[in-house]
Amino acid sequence: MSDPQRVAVVGATGYAGFELAQLLLRHPKIQKPTFYMRESSSSAHVKCLTDIFPRLRGWGEAPCRIFSVDAIASSGAGTVFLATPHEASLEMVPQLLDAGLRVVDLSGAFRFHNPETFAKWYKLPAPPKELAEEAVYGLPELYADQLPGARLVANPGCYPTSVILGLRPLVESGWIDPDRGIVADCKSGATGAGKEPKRELHFVEVDENLRAYGLFSHRHTPEVTDHTGIPGEDIVFTTHLLPVARGILSTLYVWFAEPHTPAEVEALYRKFYADRPMMRIWPAGTLPELQHVAHTNFCDIGFALDPAGRRLAVVSCLDNLGKGAAGQAVQNMNAMLGIPEATGLR
Amino acid sequence: MSDPQRVAVVGATGYAGFELAQLLLRHPKIQKPTFYMRESSSSAHVKCLTDIFPRLRGWGEAPCRIFSVDAIASSGAGTVFLATPHEASLEMVPQLLDAGLRVVDLSGAFRFHNPETFAKWYKLPAPPKELAEEAVYGLPELYADQLPGARLVANPGCYPTSVILGLRPLVESGWIDPDRGIVADCKSGATGAGKEPKRELHFVEVDENLRAYGLFSHRHTPEVTDHTGIPGEDIVFTTHLLPVARGILSTLYVWFAEPHTPAEVEALYRKFYADRPMMRIWPAGTLPELQHVAHTNFCDIGFALDPAGRRLAVVSCLDNLGKGAAGQAVQNMNAMLGIPEATGLR
Amino acid sequence: MSDPQRVAVVGATGYAGFELAQLLLRHPKIQKPTFYMRESSSSAHVKCLTDIFPRLRGWGEAPCRIFSVDAIASSGAGTVFLATPHEASLEMVPQLLDAGLRVVDLSGAFRFHNPETFAKWYKLPAPPKELAEEAVYGLPELYADQLPGARLVANPGCYPTSVILGLRPLVESGWIDPDRGIVADCKSGATGAGKEPKRELHFVEVDENLRAYGLFSHRHTPEVTDHTGIPGEDIVFTTHLLPVARGILSTLYVWFAEPHTPAEVEALYRKFYADRPMMRIWPAGTLPELQHVAHTNFCDIGFALDPAGRRLAVVSCLDNLGKGAAGQAVQNMNAMLGIPEATGLR
Amino acid sequence: MSDPQRVAVVGATGYAGFELAQLLLRHPKIQKPTFYMRESSSSAHVKCLTDIFPRLRGWGEAPCRIFSVDAIASSGAGTVFLATPHEASLEMVPQLLDAGLRVVDLSGAFRFHNPETFAKWYKLPAPPKELAEEAVYGLPELYADQLPGARLVANPGCYPTSVILGLRPLVESGWIDPDRGIVADCKSGATGAGKEPKRELHFVEVDENLRAYGLFSHRHTPEVTDHTGIPGEDIVFTTHLLPVARGILSTLYVWFAEPHTPAEVEALYRKFYADRPMMRIWPAGTLPELQHVAHTNFCDIGFALDPAGRRLAVVSCLDNLGKGAAGQAVQNMNAMLGIPEATGLR
Repeated sequence: MSDPQRVAVVGATGYAGFELAQLLLRHPKIQKPTFYMRESSSSAHVKCLTDIFPRLRGWGEAPCRIFSVDAIASSGAGTVFLATPHEASLEMVPQLLDAGLRVVDLSGAFRFHNPETFAKWYKLPAPPKELAEEAVYGLPELYADQLPGARLVANPGCYPTSVILGLRPLVESGWIDPDRGIVADCKSGATGAGKEPKRELHFVEVDENLRAYGLFSHRHTPEVTDHTGIPGEDIVFTTHLLPVARGILSTLYVWFAEPHTPAEVEALYRKFYADRPMMRIWPAGTLPELQHVAHTNFCDIGFALDPAGRRLAVVSCLDNLGKGAAGQAVQNMNAMLGIPEATGLR
Repeated sequence: MSDPQRVAVVGATGYAGFELAQLLLRHPKIQKPTFYMRESSSSAHVKCLTDIFPRLRGWGEAPCRIFSVDAIASSGAGTVFLATPHEASLEMVPQLLDAGLRVVDLSGAFRFHNPETFAKWYKLPAPPKELAEEAVYGLPELYADQLPGARLVANPGCYPTSVILGLRPLVESGWIDPDRGIVADCKSGATGAGKEPKRELHFVEVDENLRAYGLFSHRHTPEVTDHTGIPGEDIVFTTHLLPVARGILSTLYVWFAEPHTPAEVEALYRKFYADRPMMRIWPAGTLPELQHVAHTNFCDIGFALDPAGRRLAVVSCLDNLGKGAAGQAVQNMNAMLGIPEATGLR
Repeated sequence: MSDPQRVAVVGATGYAGFELAQLLLRHPKIQKPTFYMRESSSSAHVKCLTDIFPRLRGWGEAPCRIFSVDAIASSGAGTVFLATPHEASLEMVPQLLDAGLRVVDLSGAFRFHNPETFAKWYKLPAPPKELAEEAVYGLPELYADQLPGARLVANPGCYPTSVILGLRPLVESGWIDPDRGIVADCKSGATGAGKEPKRELHFVEVDENLRAYGLFSHRHTPEVTDHTGIPGEDIVFTTHLLPVARGILSTLYVWFAEPHTPAEVEALYRKFYADRPMMRIWPAGTLPELQHVAHTNFCDIGFALDPAGRRLAVVSCLDNLGKGAAGQAVQNMNAMLGIPEATGLR
Repeated sequence: MSDPQRVAVVGATGYAGFELAQLLLRHPKIQKPTFYMRESSSSAHVKCLTDIFPRLRGWGEAPCRIFSVDAIASSGAGTVFLATPHEASLEMVPQLLDAGLRVVDLSGAFRFHNPETFAKWYKLPAPPKELAEEAVYGLPELYADQLPGARLVANPGCYPTSVILGLRPLVESGWIDPDRGIVADCKSGATGAGKEPKRELHFVEVDENLRAYGLFSHRHTPEVTDHTGIPGEDIVFTTHLLPVARGILSTLYVWFAEPHTPAEVEALYRKFYADRPMMRIWPAGTLPELQHVAHTNFCDIGFALDPAGRRLAVVSCLDNLGKGAAGQAVQNMNAMLGIPEATGLR
């Protein structure tokens, strides 16, 4: 019999997967997770996640097995996290759903209602149309009502999470001057770029450096336009690589059509995110910093308004491995399983 | 007799001053500089710059003396650099000019033609009107013709140098859509914040962090609007503190009224900065990074244009202690004295 | 009535105090702590720890009050943590003990059985002799049996914790060649140097740097000799400041009188620390790194032995704010109160 | 006709090679260098070093050609730098010498008089015996008299340079207690580990970390014992990877047989390195730091002595790409060609 609170994790070898492992090993409301990896030349030696990550010693048992849909289905697990490459998720998700399992997928494969959006931006085959349409975009602050019954949750990208949470209240307010452009200038730590050794991720190439990359071509672009509702031609979304390990800080720029006060802007955010446990709105005149959210699942939002009340800069911060990946995945699981959303995340 | 190529430096104890000392000690066309400091409890022990900066050992002699206008005037020096606080420059500049010396002032005191602009943004007394009007804004790429005869050069701020050099060609092209806003999202290393120990500059507060600061109140704002010619309400200029020692990377966003091609944009910059030895324009499709300009006097400019040719992101990089401060001061001195501009700067 | 599991924290404004606050706010077996600070110009505005550390928002209530012995005693608290300067601890500890409270002191004031040792190395008045003798040196791996009944626990220094835990098994083994010297070359992150802004802790002075400091004068020296039992003339203990926020890595060098095998060395450590939940011994041939222990309460020990089995290098790592300060203080509290030692520390 | 002051560089694509290129492009006494690379899939596109390192734009012409002994010999070059892998140097050196060229080899291939030492520690074929014996170990502070006539100079390793320069005066003094052991605890920045992307050099794996590596197996070990004269069993030499780009700081520990004063120790070093332009001895009571030597060719030495005058800790610092590699190679070239040793190095 499958038990939704017995979970499996596929692909815990990357930074997000490792973070997920740590969160799940401490989660008070679920069974100890089992970890699965693809069969490979090195997998035979791995019996336990500690064999891959020696630093996990002392955190409790974390058995590691060779991945197969049958192995997971017969283990009694009811919920599966995929911290796998896009291609692997494309292949595994239909099989896992067919086996009656619920899935939280951390890849980009099921993030778009229109499967061609994925194919175009990721240069990979499109996912099945019915699954792309069924998948819930796992941003609980916006789509909490769709999560409890979901079979498939597409965990959002790290950059889009910070940008969408920062802009959506403004878009819904109707205060933005539609003639002016909107800019999302985003900066991320290097865990966001993945664990694969590459020239541009060598310590010496990142240390004491800052680099803009992926301008007008970043795969997270369509998530931003889909979930803010801002037309692509009206917004510029850029990404920069910071010499830090963790965290995203997005500076978001809009012009208001009519003047507003700082108190109004603060009230707008507070009302929009009332009762959302992972959102922290900073008082007018203060701003969150990257360090404030590192190793947490919070998304912090602060802002500055010009004296004339027309030009607004919003700072939206989160930990790209927390609210930007693994933490959000756990938050989604909590919502799917009827567990209070912040459980295991503070 | 005063010799213009005999130089004096007042206030070499900060980061910009130290950089200036290093540049001048190696400069092939000037006499070895003399350094001056205010009399203080510790100044009596200081005979040589090496007494303040032990790491200067082996770089050559750098005599240090107590500052007075007479001491400088009677030393035979003809050109004086002020790496002093704004208040000190306000006081020293008129005296040094009266003594027949030429001055390159690294403070903000004489950067504005309208002296009230300084008073308002720096909350200090306004400089004398006739000196504020006489001072040349020391950005040789724009004002080279005014430098040779100048008595007083106001060395620009580090952020404005990067923003103005990145935006001015676009403004002059007439291509910018005037209805859309312009954004300058700037990121700087910590030497730009000065050497004074402060809580927010403690290693632990900067390391693994990113912080936006001075939003809508940064003192460099009026330099940006004065020298780009963009009205204040149409541009947002923001600053962020990076966990690196040196360098500024400014990401600049404009919308074009009509579509343009990458080749047109590259050609615009190349033409505008033809023969300017310290400007490096990156080929369309490539972008400069902070590391490319560290420890140099270059300002590097690259860009990305959206496929529709309407949304442009420009990346402008420089070393805040080089082209953003001390290097630019030497470049200004070169221009003032008829020495080729890049001398001592490569 | 005082309840031992109701705790108070005095001085949570530094790095160790903040870490302590975070640990205690999540601790499953104690009452929510109350925080106390000295009355000052700014203390009137502080009602809650979040007023000092905005990043604590969302972590739960953390009331802040003005310190007085009466306030603590009448609050019902039974256990007090002092994350205060040495001078303050010297004054507060006797008063708090007199009021019937139990104290874990994170300062250096009560770490030495001989009170003159403190006076000599810290250049401050000696603590009362009877308290210096009564105080338990709070290293649970060595002195667990003295903790349950203790009224006063002196929480060890961060460097000594790493050095003593690394050397003590070797000293007790009798394997060390007494003719050879012993070296403890220690490297620490900048949180260990405190939060006070100082020139040498400015980001620019620590970033891309490494600096040895306090050679033959570091205050932690007598803790090392007292608790390893190695005579001062036979050991050199040095400290270096790393460009990282957290963590200590100590490389410890000894020569053996007779050859030993890696298996023997590993077995020695495993036996010595059997059942100690916060010690992780690395298999022969592997070494712990700083990252492995950051944000944990573990002390990790690994080693390398030369092929002849005579020269040994031991690597002992911990988080200076965890096992080196706040985490160890909580571990001590657990032992004092009969709570399993690792509670709240994983 | 070959001209000794016309130089060629083979293999400028790594960190040391790039540093060498920068030094040689600015060197006032040599012809502009020509750069050579092995033919490969990408080499066809490379006409100039700027094609590999865009940041070199504006530094002058740096033509790049396909490597062959004939191409170099027929170019008129007289001196060749090899910044190549050990295997490549093993192959190229005999051919270049046969063609009448002089060689400075930055690899480890010719650093050992006994060719079997190389074979054993590098697990590669031994170099020809007569060349291993002919090669001069290029540490000008010790072997200046052998450099002017040399055909082949083996440029030392970065760690050994710092350790040998720090220990050799002590060894020659006869002051060291032979019963006590000697420890060299060395810490290096990540450029020392090479440019090849590897998991352990990923930014995230180095940042906020410190790691000991290569204990009792580091290839630089035999250089240390050969040129200090200390028997291998009496010294432990260890290496650590710092989260910085550049620099080595070695902390060296010795015990004296008889007490000495700080003044005696300082005088010992000053006398030993009198007139050596790249050595900076720090006054007793002060210590050099990594930042002091970054981007220089200096080796800085300071020390601390215990109050009893018996235990000595020496701090020896250099830039691993400067005095530890490329700068030293230029210093060696200067000595070979009769150019003052520090030319082009300040």
